[in-house]
Amino acid sequence: MNGAQALIRTLVDGGVDVCFGNPGTSEMHFVAALDTVPEMRGVLCLFEGVATGAADGYGRMTGRPAGVLLHLGPGLANGLANLHNARRAATPMVPVVGDHAGYHKQYDSPLDSDIDALAGTVSRWMRRSETSADVARDAAEAIAAARTAPGGIATLILPADVSWSEGAAPAAPQPAGGPRPVPEDAVAGVAALLTSGEPCAVLVGGAATREAGLRAAGRVARAAGARLFCETFPARLERGAGLPPVERLPRAGQQVAARLAGVRHLVCVGARPPVEFFAYPDRPSSLVPEGCAVHVLAEGADDVVGALDRLADLVAPGVEPDLQPLQRPELPTGPLTPDAVGAALGALLPEGAVVVDEGVTSTRQMPVPTAGAPRHDWLTLTGGAIGQGLPVATGAAVAAPGRRVVCLEGDGSAMYTISALWTQAREQLDVTTVVFSNRSYRILEGELRNVGAEASGPRSRDLLELSRPDLDFVSLAAGMGVPGSRATTAEEFVEQFRRAVTEPGPHVIDAVLTVP
Amino acid sequence: MNGAQALIRTLVDGGVDVCFGNPGTSEMHFVAALDTVPEMRGVLCLFEGVATGAADGYGRMTGRPAGVLLHLGPGLANGLANLHNARRAATPMVPVVGDHAGYHKQYDSPLDSDIDALAGTVSRWMRRSETSADVARDAAEAIAAARTAPGGIATLILPADVSWSEGAAPAAPQPAGGPRPVPEDAVAGVAALLTSGEPCAVLVGGAATREAGLRAAGRVARAAGARLFCETFPARLERGAGLPPVERLPRAGQQVAARLAGVRHLVCVGARPPVEFFAYPDRPSSLVPEGCAVHVLAEGADDVVGALDRLADLVAPGVEPDLQPLQRPELPTGPLTPDAVGAALGALLPEGAVVVDEGVTSTRQMPVPTAGAPRHDWLTLTGGAIGQGLPVATGAAVAAPGRRVVCLEGDGSAMYTISALWTQAREQLDVTTVVFSNRSYRILEGELRNVGAEASGPRSRDLLELSRPDLDFVSLAAGMGVPGSRATTAEEFVEQFRRAVTEPGPHVIDAVLTVP
Repeated sequence: MNGAQALIRTLVDGGVDVCFGNPGTSEMHFVAALDTVPEMRGVLCLFEGVATGAADGYGRMTGRPAGVLLHLGPGLANGLANLHNARRAATPMVPVVGDHAGYHKQYDSPLDSDIDALAGTVSRWMRRSETSADVARDAAEAIAAARTAPGGIATLILPADVSWSEGAAPAAPQPAGGPRPVPEDAVAGVAALLTSGEPCAVLVGGAATREAGLRAAGRVARAAGARLFCETFPARLERGAGLPPVERLPRAGQQVAARLAGVRHLVCVGARPPVEFFAYPDRPSSLVPEGCAVHVLAEGADDVVGALDRLADLVAPGVEPDLQPLQRPELPTGPLTPDAVGAALGALLPEGAVVVDEGVTSTRQMPVPTAGAPRHDWLTLTGGAIGQGLPVATGAAVAAPGRRVVCLEGDGSAMYTISALWTQAREQLDVTTVVFSNRSYRILEGELRNVGAEASGPRSRDLLELSRPDLDFVSLAAGMGVPGSRATTAEEFVEQFRRAVTEPGPHVIDAVLTVP
Repeated sequence: MNGAQALIRTLVDGGVDVCFGNPGTSEMHFVAALDTVPEMRGVLCLFEGVATGAADGYGRMTGRPAGVLLHLGPGLANGLANLHNARRAATPMVPVVGDHAGYHKQYDSPLDSDIDALAGTVSRWMRRSETSADVARDAAEAIAAARTAPGGIATLILPADVSWSEGAAPAAPQPAGGPRPVPEDAVAGVAALLTSGEPCAVLVGGAATREAGLRAAGRVARAAGARLFCETFPARLERGAGLPPVERLPRAGQQVAARLAGVRHLVCVGARPPVEFFAYPDRPSSLVPEGCAVHVLAEGADDVVGALDRLADLVAPGVEPDLQPLQRPELPTGPLTPDAVGAALGALLPEGAVVVDEGVTSTRQMPVPTAGAPRHDWLTLTGGAIGQGLPVATGAAVAAPGRRVVCLEGDGSAMYTISALWTQAREQLDVTTVVFSNRSYRILEGELRNVGAEASGPRSRDLLELSRPDLDFVSLAAGMGVPGSRATTAEEFVEQFRRAVTEPGPHVIDAVLTVP
């Protein structure tokens, strides 16, 4: 058995049975070995940023790492932006980066580069396998490292000769580390605060944005009269009818200040205290109001849900959380605005949908009209590196067959990793993509003002507008085998979206927004 | 004057007057400052890999660095693969990477990452500007570093507060370092070899692949009866009618062995001794034949052309080089094969064309039929990181208005940075792109055999084929405002190519190859 075969067998035995990738020569034995371990599903992506983003979506939905096959340093480089997002999401993932054979490195052939330096910027664990006898044990360690709470990126660098050499054997799975227990006095201390009568808020994030954590947090908030918030960019928020509602903190600093006004104690559970996304002249970076004390009950690696459960037992015995009733808005009519799309989503989102949100400015108001839709998941842009939506939607659809994935995309961000559509077509994934065509980097027009700069002339405006020529996403989708349609009114959007979410396979709606 | 304004003024004064980019919030003052320094041309790219590749193409054609504006670590990450190629090409370039304000870094906000680690893998010079008073001097140093022979990447990291703070002033240009002189005894030693009567070959690369170097090398080869080769992947090879012809060493090791068979002395001038692109089991990495001694007359940073001139004066006084006569093949007919495309190019390539070659397997034979076409440049994939062709063509067209750029693209590699077409449309660049649609990663099918692996079943084949669905490059181009056409026979290709190279603006020919 060669190294590649032992590696794939070990991955499968460790629960890693999907591998997104774009291989090259140094990964050919890995590719060939796929046919010897039929339990491994290889999914071809046409660009590495699609592969890493898909693995992120897969990991968020399953809690298990996918493998990602990357071709040397440049392949890893192409996947880094979505690895950055996955790192922020604490997604378990096992990238396998092929490298030249060890003896070949000294020749510095054209594709050689510093893989370790690149991988180090996103990996919680990293190893270069030295021999074919090591690779299976290394892979088992990688899986355990990726799965150790709260989850992260464990990168295995695989020299070609390790892959092709005989003498390998599969390794048994290794146990992953569980979350760190939260000390009793920490829970008791927060309980005392919450019952002190002072204005409190609870900010949940990470593992606490799923049903169990939200139920406990909802009990606490209700019993203590505390406000309940969720981090601005959750990796996966379970929401909708039947679940405890939670308000995501806005991105904009001024709006955060308004939400937290008067709060004296901010209890963070799996979330970090709010900070500005960017620095702005003469504005503070921290968004914790003056006079508000921060109390960290649990960090991401801690037993976030357990801590909330114990807190609820202390401050809310017998209390049930508020639950969101089923409540859908009316179907929109008239101009196609972001609000109209929001209403349409709220009205038509199918039960069990997975919403992948990279709508940037266009989806900021979307949480409100969709709050009472049937139960669904909401996946956000955790690390701010655009080009994440289409790939994450692709991976989420591989992870959750039978569920409809709805991908909300900005036009600017869609173009970063547009080839994800091809993989959706090839794998016949149930992904409905809505591209918000506002023909600009709309967020930057606002940010220009926020930083106190001004686009005084055509040269600066040229770098912010996506027009001349307009992008035609129906044509782009068709080029990759994905059916598409263009909506320019709310009525058209409703009709197209209603059909798209019931038909099998992918579809793109080019939502040409009416710009006020 | 704020830091951004002083920076752009200093760049322009230092000869950097084109900036490819994709900005974000942290770069808004740079964008705003574009209108205060109208000599700077900003070119919007929809993905950073397009921006860095375009700067590579621009630098190869002008010998001067372009600026590249990148948004934080993820923006740099997206541009890294083409920075890798540019590093291998020794292209002068000044990437400006925006970062958070210094005081904001401690908050580790979502987009924060280790920019220095990423930039370090591709940069010959790198600095983080500390204050607005420093930034102009830093930029002047960056330009000098990028231009110092043979050229390279000088990365300036620009914190947002350095950009927006007042108190800056432009800095004067700094001198770039010239090439290192080659010692007299090195030249004399090689001259002695070449006149020894033993079989010699001269391998040129880097600066020696332009007319002056080729003329000197051609004189040497003719006088000494030495074989003359060019490195496999030159950054920019000047060739065609009226220039000394030079054969590029093939990529495949066995073919290199055949070319160098019997050579006792290999003289390298600006080129490195040939090595295998990848390691293959039971094959040597070095492609220098046994019994052949390597003599390095000049490395990339040395005065490559000067050394060749002095060598020619010693061994070839009064000798003129062989020159390529104008010699075009007949127009092809019948099935659309790579050879048919080659013949069409040879027959129709306009005077002064710039050929950007990322055709991978499809363009391997192209040097022969195009050898006698009117004088042109040939730019190749120097670092092996695919996704380089469309961006390099974009930058070359910006650099060389009035010349026709012909971009030869594989279908797989085209999909890496397809959004370059949009920039070509916006800037109305005269780029004719030929996509070789063979519906597979054809090179990998061969490489699978080369490494001794076998695609024994459908799972491995799935990772190598680009079919199901087929990509439609006419539709993709239309989605980005670029006219396109599909050719399925040699006659159709000839007709479409002939028209495309005479019409202004970009055009894509989807060349659907007849696969034998």
